[in-house]
Amino acid sequence: MFDQLRFDYLSCAGHPTLQTPNIDRLARKGVRFTNAYTQSPVCGAARMSAYTGRYVSSHGAQWNGVPLKVGEPTLGDHMRAHGTGCWLIGKTHMRADKAGMARLGLTPDSVIGARQAECGFDIWCRDDGLWAEGPGGPYDNARSPYNEYLKSRGYGGDNPWADFANAAADDDIIASGWFMKNADRPANIREEDSETPWLTTQTIDFIAQAEGPWCAHLSYIKPHWPYIVPAPYHDMYGPADVVPATRDPCELSDPHPLYQAFTDTIIGRSFRRDDVRDKVIPAYMGLIRQCDDQMGRLFDWLEESGRMEDTMIILTSDHGDYLGDHWLGEKDLFHAPSVKVPLIICDPRESADPTRGTTCDALVESIDVTATIIDAAGATIPDHIVEGRSLVPYLGGQTPDDARDFVISEYDYSKHPVGTTLEAPPRDARLFMVADHDWKLVHCAAGYRPMLFDLRNDPDELRDLGADPACATARAQMYEKLHAWGLRMSQRLTVSEDEIRAQRAGGNDTGVLLGLVDGSEVAPDLVARYRGKVPRRP
Amino acid sequence: MFDQLRFDYLSCAGHPTLQTPNIDRLARKGVRFTNAYTQSPVCGAARMSAYTGRYVSSHGAQWNGVPLKVGEPTLGDHMRAHGTGCWLIGKTHMRADKAGMARLGLTPDSVIGARQAECGFDIWCRDDGLWAEGPGGPYDNARSPYNEYLKSRGYGGDNPWADFANAAADDDIIASGWFMKNADRPANIREEDSETPWLTTQTIDFIAQAEGPWCAHLSYIKPHWPYIVPAPYHDMYGPADVVPATRDPCELSDPHPLYQAFTDTIIGRSFRRDDVRDKVIPAYMGLIRQCDDQMGRLFDWLEESGRMEDTMIILTSDHGDYLGDHWLGEKDLFHAPSVKVPLIICDPRESADPTRGTTCDALVESIDVTATIIDAAGATIPDHIVEGRSLVPYLGGQTPDDARDFVISEYDYSKHPVGTTLEAPPRDARLFMVADHDWKLVHCAAGYRPMLFDLRNDPDELRDLGADPACATARAQMYEKLHAWGLRMSQRLTVSEDEIRAQRAGGNDTGVLLGLVDGSEVAPDLVARYRGKVPRRP
Repeated sequence: MFDQLRFDYLSCAGHPTLQTPNIDRLARKGVRFTNAYTQSPVCGAARMSAYTGRYVSSHGAQWNGVPLKVGEPTLGDHMRAHGTGCWLIGKTHMRADKAGMARLGLTPDSVIGARQAECGFDIWCRDDGLWAEGPGGPYDNARSPYNEYLKSRGYGGDNPWADFANAAADDDIIASGWFMKNADRPANIREEDSETPWLTTQTIDFIAQAEGPWCAHLSYIKPHWPYIVPAPYHDMYGPADVVPATRDPCELSDPHPLYQAFTDTIIGRSFRRDDVRDKVIPAYMGLIRQCDDQMGRLFDWLEESGRMEDTMIILTSDHGDYLGDHWLGEKDLFHAPSVKVPLIICDPRESADPTRGTTCDALVESIDVTATIIDAAGATIPDHIVEGRSLVPYLGGQTPDDARDFVISEYDYSKHPVGTTLEAPPRDARLFMVADHDWKLVHCAAGYRPMLFDLRNDPDELRDLGADPACATARAQMYEKLHAWGLRMSQRLTVSEDEIRAQRAGGNDTGVLLGLVDGSEVAPDLVARYRGKVPRRP
Repeated sequence: MFDQLRFDYLSCAGHPTLQTPNIDRLARKGVRFTNAYTQSPVCGAARMSAYTGRYVSSHGAQWNGVPLKVGEPTLGDHMRAHGTGCWLIGKTHMRADKAGMARLGLTPDSVIGARQAECGFDIWCRDDGLWAEGPGGPYDNARSPYNEYLKSRGYGGDNPWADFANAAADDDIIASGWFMKNADRPANIREEDSETPWLTTQTIDFIAQAEGPWCAHLSYIKPHWPYIVPAPYHDMYGPADVVPATRDPCELSDPHPLYQAFTDTIIGRSFRRDDVRDKVIPAYMGLIRQCDDQMGRLFDWLEESGRMEDTMIILTSDHGDYLGDHWLGEKDLFHAPSVKVPLIICDPRESADPTRGTTCDALVESIDVTATIIDAAGATIPDHIVEGRSLVPYLGGQTPDDARDFVISEYDYSKHPVGTTLEAPPRDARLFMVADHDWKLVHCAAGYRPMLFDLRNDPDELRDLGADPACATARAQMYEKLHAWGLRMSQRLTVSEDEIRAQRAGGNDTGVLLGLVDGSEVAPDLVARYRGKVPRRP
């Protein structure tokens, strides 16, 4: 899993100048899903969905920093129950539910407590990749293995992540990668010491020592900002490689108040500047190119070690990046650059031979990846817990019986500055996207009108038809899907569908037989059980 | 809390012949809510809602025997956090989430594990009150303190609950209370040894020894069936006291398939017989009269001991009982006899003086009782967890700001025989009731048409308008409420609304400042933090 990698910034996905030969090589061996949606266009919520296989409203960790509640079943739980370890190498954005853990007497120094604190993973290496510090202290209070690595490699200071890996040098002065004016400069670090190669090395080390079946979540921070990359990647691409922004002045005319608020942030204002895009996007492309090279290094090692033949590889991202499209930066809303994710699945088994090198335009979600992993491992998907649906049938060229006819994504802006701007009550600051091949509707729990896009006739999503009287039928159809989803069964986690069916078949033979008048309604031998001589009465 | 006590089987609620002078006495000292709805018309689900303050779809323990998932916060957690113990005396219908507890390393022999296994209560005495046995073994595998008590009192045999407390004697032969033909006979037990007096004694013992603030859940099994009661209550009422069934032949003409399936069960067929009603209802009334006498005993003791002055009393039930109304027995569906519950709240404090002896027709739910208890204890209601709303303002004669404009109840029939009859997929076998003062709509997740009742013009709910074209607007209005409820925020349990507001106010001062081009967007001293001399580079 990459972080903030757009679905369309791969050469196999049609980017005109960015070359990603190694990811393309994976795509040639597997299936590339062209309509894969994240459960939420923000790191924390998206990841908690990926790690639980459940919708954001179902697990409740709705934004960055919202702890995943204790006891929420995870991919790690399901895999370990099947005898497969589940390991983390890199980022999760997990925050432990300290209050919930304390209530249950769980501490992170026990195996059980550690897994609760780490969203179900065992830790090979956790590094969330944002080691910023401000007047209020560090963004992340955890230990940074990457900073320790840099120090062991001779980089000085307290925070070489900030001072070297994510900064250029302005002569002798730090030129931070947080300032996008520096995006075209090389990070002041040897390329082999930067984050992406370091995590790749960690991964090779993990696989080299692994015994028995394993599942590893290799989770890169890049190409997430700060947008700065070491040489030679910093100038592989330039302004000429920047594709024009997908945007139109009509989007800013009588805009939806929520959309307007997002365009009015510092981020939105910066990204509408072409000079900013011309600096940032080449750096972003350089970061992706570095990621691709590291994929190549990993794939080569897997081939040389024989592991490519018995390793299933799923390549995806947690969400995308607007990069100025729709007058926006970052993610947060539901236009394709933000809500769609790359998804390539390569299963080395013969069963997947029919589809190698193909694309699949079915509507799929990030939580489907979770279900796919469980299914591919040969375990039964606990579908009363995991809301994702296995993609394994697609790999064999089949359309699954439970193929989706719509996809859902959610966004909670209660902690986002836009929530403050709009004075939104926290519980109402929530958005729901429902999309199919034809329409995309965004519902606002705070009471704003919906947004609506006609994906067939306006594939670039430039015209919001949320208030167009001509589209009332489309809105009603999409709302019907959303409302059925809203009433889905998502919390009956303790009894499976099969267990319920079995209990039905068993009937009630434990003596509670309601509605009997005289026993003639049931078998005589059952009635006899309720009679007998009265025992001793005082 | 009583079990299966109808809202209208109290003399203060207008029953023409049943006398409940002690409950009436409580109503004269408090407020009687006339539109209180259970969260689910079935024991287990209703109780888990009462004990968590959360909707059935939110906690997921959707029917009897579905374990409440580990970690679900309970009333006990909230009260203990405020320094108030929370104790159980009687029934809960709780099933522990053994798999979830095992996953978290929790065992019932620890304090934390025991509370997880007992839906948050500390146990003074747990007795779920159904000690039936059949060919498949006992209905309840727990130890029965009540059976132990009976044995200590000299009642013989393995199961004096079944053989004495819930059976008559046919000369020397057991005449089980499970057969309703026996409902007019006296249970073969001394009245003072029957369940209701025994639990009342347990309660007095508890209160007598309690120190510091406490919350006690006194939870009677009665007047739940078996419909049999000891002398002198067995013949206090007779067929002349049976009010006519609220039913009409039109209900059985072209009925909704789900309603029809419930009327076609053994229970429905028995309860449409007047001879059955004439036997059962007097026994049911006798059980209630015994409950009322025990309330009198408890209230007298509270007055004599001075505890009446510092004890808040909330009297309610988990759901009602059709008793032949609408051609149905038991509960399960959403007509008033099943879904409405008695609710009387008596707060001894001066703040409640303005409303003593009054009724309140506001729309309230069982989960509101949970919130009321927390509020009345002086604690802050964690309203990101507890979905109930405090009724304390009503006690002071005020309408709360968050007064409900509709109520919700849910029913999961996936484990009910009707689920088998209708071959319902377990996840779809769910019903949702949404009601206000004017309309009651029942939505069927399995795809059947809704049911609709016009509460103003058809208060007895005899005409299902779910398919009536003239009521399309009413259906749409009620669906709008239900759909908004379906998208409610119910799982963001780890961060409160206030914490989110505080985090907004703090802003992001931990160094992640997105969207900056050159730093001119923020204060210079902040920018300076990102500069400085480059430390040693290898």
